[in-house]
Amino acid sequence: MRTGYHKQLSELCTQLSEMCGLTADAMDRATQALLDADLTLAEQVIADHAHIALLNRRAEETALKLLALQQPVAGELRTIVGSIRISADIERMGALAVHVASISRLRHPECALPNDVRASFAEMGTRAVQLARTAQEVLRSPDPEKAARLHDEDDAVDAEHRHLFTLLIDHKWQDGVCSAVDVALLGRYYERFADHAVEIGRRVIFEATGGLPANKQLA
Amino acid sequence: MRTGYHKQLSELCTQLSEMCGLTADAMDRATQALLDADLTLAEQVIADHAHIALLNRRAEETALKLLALQQPVAGELRTIVGSIRISADIERMGALAVHVASISRLRHPECALPNDVRASFAEMGTRAVQLARTAQEVLRSPDPEKAARLHDEDDAVDAEHRHLFTLLIDHKWQDGVCSAVDVALLGRYYERFADHAVEIGRRVIFEATGGLPANKQLA
Repeated sequence: MRTGYHKQLSELCTQLSEMCGLTADAMDRATQALLDADLTLAEQVIADHAHIALLNRRAEETALKLLALQQPVAGELRTIVGSIRISADIERMGALAVHVASISRLRHPECALPNDVRASFAEMGTRAVQLARTAQEVLRSPDPEKAARLHDEDDAVDAEHRHLFTLLIDHKWQDGVCSAVDVALLGRYYERFADHAVEIGRRVIFEATGGLPANKQLA
Repeated sequence: MRTGYHKQLSELCTQLSEMCGLTADAMDRATQALLDADLTLAEQVIADHAHIALLNRRAEETALKLLALQQPVAGELRTIVGSIRISADIERMGALAVHVASISRLRHPECALPNDVRASFAEMGTRAVQLARTAQEVLRSPDPEKAARLHDEDDAVDAEHRHLFTLLIDHKWQDGVCSAVDVALLGRYYERFADHAVEIGRRVIFEATGGLPANKQLA
């Protein structure tokens, strides 16, 4: 029975890692759809989210079952409880990719991004997807040092996000109010996506060491 | 020992309810600070958040301890696991109130809100605080019917949020880009605050009935 239990526990971690990988794919495609005003790709991101939501629900059911039937303690208990919060982070990451895709769809056939901010979003997209891939890796093979690096990698997303606001607020924005609103919200979606990846890293560290590092949740 | 256990479980629910009440207070003050450009009040909301974050951490520790020492099953297990996700929702609500206060502080001594949208934010603030109060009540005394009403009450926040975007995008916005960006982000903060209250309602229903109603998490 304990063998079956360890198999299920390991499957739960694999499941979370795969879900995190799906959100990395989703944000990658959403960014491409945004940069290229690609309606088909945007709609694909939106349609695919139901699958992530379903997996999220299954992960939580597996966690509940393990808690009910196996009475885990110490490290295993932290892993299972952590998985419940991690699956919520992953679902939000998927939802944020959908938000990016939705703005892209809403503005089609126009591109939602004025030329001045294209490079910023390409950069934020690359960084955000990379953060999700790192989170995916540490969920598969817990590595507190790599997980801690997520916090530093996020600084680049935050810096790009601040730069966007400099363009919007301090400089003379020439592209109109509608576009400024889109850009402000899009920037926020990327920033939050990255924060959730950092939060997953914090949880992985907590599960490995029993101590939670300082959080970025105020973002 | 089981008596002590039930006492701790009941204390955990009380703790969550009180934390939710604190976020209602925070959003109430943040809205007042926003409407009146009141710097002292805004700074108070920002400073007070550390307390909510601390309570959040304690609630999670209590939940972990209950799971480790008491091997709960069925309804009690759902309550404890639910409390872990609920405490995350509550902490986000607190963080969103801080975001509102931060914009208010950033624009001081100016008011961040142009006259045209003051009534909308007064309305969204009242509704959002009311949703948090209802969530506080159902956390103290679980009531699936009342919890389900949170979903409907949130429709008013969503409607006001859509109305804001009509003002920003479809009409001729006369108050400049900086102000449009503030209004778009502020609208988002209220909408998300309300969504977390609805999510708490869903969790309360799940704990009472074992079934999760459809979610609004895509917002």
